Amino acid sequence: MKVQSINLEEKFSKFSTHWTPKIIGELNGQYLKLAKVKNDFVWHSHAHEDELFFVVKGTLIMEYRDQPTTRTGPGEILIIPKGVEHLPRTEDEEVWLMLCEPKTTKHTGAVEHEKTVKNLEWI
Amino acid sequence: MKVQSINLEEKFSKFSTHWTPKIIGELNGQYLKLAKVKNDFVWHSHAHEDELFFVVKGTLIMEYRDQPTTRTGPGEILIIPKGVEHLPRTEDEEVWLMLCEPKTTKHTGAVEHEKTVKNLEWI
Repeated sequence: MKVQSINLEEKFSKFSTHWTPKIIGELNGQYLKLAKVKNDFVWHSHAHEDELFFVVKGTLIMEYRDQPTTRTGPGEILIIPKGVEHLPRTEDEEVWLMLCEPKTTKHTGAVEHEKTVKNLEWI
Repeated sequence: MKVQSINLEEKFSKFSTHWTPKIIGELNGQYLKLAKVKNDFVWHSHAHEDELFFVVKGTLIMEYRDQPTTRTGPGEILIIPKGVEHLPRTEDEEVWLMLCEPKTTKHTGAVEHEKTVKNLEWI
């Protein structure tokens, strides 16, 4: 297996749809994914999995049931512990994210929603 | 537990020693770490753990026993699969890295070396 650098800009250029994470790598039972997001996602939580968001472009706004909203900008990271209900959203801009979470994680958690992507694609 | 953004620049400003990874977060049994590196590290591999390198500044050079050297720049990622022997190094510049690997991972793998850090510090 050949080890190669993965260039984020080049991978981001390969897709444009919002809220449809694409896989760019795997390690230790987890997928490394990229997503472009805009406007509201859906309230959800992951019972058994922590979720990492690394913001590449724009500002990720995250709402919670029982703590103040957070705003995460480029070069910043947000880790949502398992069980914490959250609503990712943005203002009127496209936000680019890198995500790291177990392969078993559905991006809408236990919630089945029209935004749930069933088959993740490698790019 | 309060969820808060983690700012990489701010965390990098908290330490200056080379080859001594600092913990900035944890998820799914792994630590998210930052490291400043310069010049050669040591040949090593991790029998059971894949290792992620995200380059924030500079160019990470990685040598392997049986494939060509890779060069990974800012905004690029390198995933070293378990079992692959590797030697991280840099040219004459300081390189800033974000790492993600299981909590059990020693950064020198099975190799005990003067550069092995035994007690990782949270920053």
